[in-house]
Amino acid sequence: MTNLRTAPPLAADPNAPDDLAAFKHAFRRHAAGVAAITTLAPDGTPVGFTATSLASLSAVPPLATFNMARSASSWAAISVADRVVIHMLGAQNRAIAEKLAGPHADRFVGDHWQPGPHGLPVLAGVTSWMVGRIVERLSVHNNAVVVVQIEGGGMGADDEALLYHERTYRVPGAPV
Amino acid sequence: MTNLRTAPPLAADPNAPDDLAAFKHAFRRHAAGVAAITTLAPDGTPVGFTATSLASLSAVPPLATFNMARSASSWAAISVADRVVIHMLGAQNRAIAEKLAGPHADRFVGDHWQPGPHGLPVLAGVTSWMVGRIVERLSVHNNAVVVVQIEGGGMGADDEALLYHERTYRVPGAPV
Repeated sequence: MTNLRTAPPLAADPNAPDDLAAFKHAFRRHAAGVAAITTLAPDGTPVGFTATSLASLSAVPPLATFNMARSASSWAAISVADRVVIHMLGAQNRAIAEKLAGPHADRFVGDHWQPGPHGLPVLAGVTSWMVGRIVERLSVHNNAVVVVQIEGGGMGADDEALLYHERTYRVPGAPV
Repeated sequence: MTNLRTAPPLAADPNAPDDLAAFKHAFRRHAAGVAAITTLAPDGTPVGFTATSLASLSAVPPLATFNMARSASSWAAISVADRVVIHMLGAQNRAIAEKLAGPHADRFVGDHWQPGPHGLPVLAGVTSWMVGRIVERLSVHNNAVVVVQIEGGGMGADDEALLYHERTYRVPGAPV
């Protein structure tokens, strides 16, 4: 344990982690809410993935962002899609989170979704969902930041939020 | 409670929330990890804020993103800064989270920080911190997505991650 009150800045520490080690250590200490993003490929096939990068950008207008690798199986569809559905996952949706992080071809095999606005796949039993238009795609190296302007959505099941932390799905715990 | 197995898509629901209502409802259901971003203003004044939008973009190279309003008090400094420090906050850092979300002039009054790499403010007692170079700033309406390439950092106190959910600071709870 390093105490910054007594320890020198880490730049002066011979044991300082390098860039990747610092990044990995920090994100291990970070808890993230779990969302699922879906869209349609140009041929009408449903596509989607589990995301721990969903963030609010603005309320007026309502804008959200998510990040992904451009090597991800969903990128071909996201890169050309007009709209996506962003789902907030709850504790009851752990199976959906795992399914949409699993083999690409299996993600929409089952009755856990149905067509919603614009024919886009809407996942069943989520705590909330939003449909929105992709307004920006920022490529950085082999990744993309995607900005979505929310147009509408729906309320879902009343459930605890789903978190991902220390490689484990969890629910929020005690107030501090 | 709307059950998508039985309810029509919300676009056909006369009680469907509009864009802002959908956005607000969804993000109320989302739990976020809490981070703090700091930098120096051109005159050397420490500047920073509490962020619930921190996300990983890529591990190789190590890239992270955060979002902010360009009306925020820290934007003038962030808009021209070369580098920032991104801190992961833990349960013991609730006071820092509140201080860096409070009045701008008070945020660095106290001994909760010290100069670190490049003279940038490093907050004391955090669970982990990363220093990085701003490589992109994407403006969308009156907001910005900031992309940071991590260069190094330090390990901090072993502590539970700090969450913000339902307007309350929490720690992660039980696995599901």
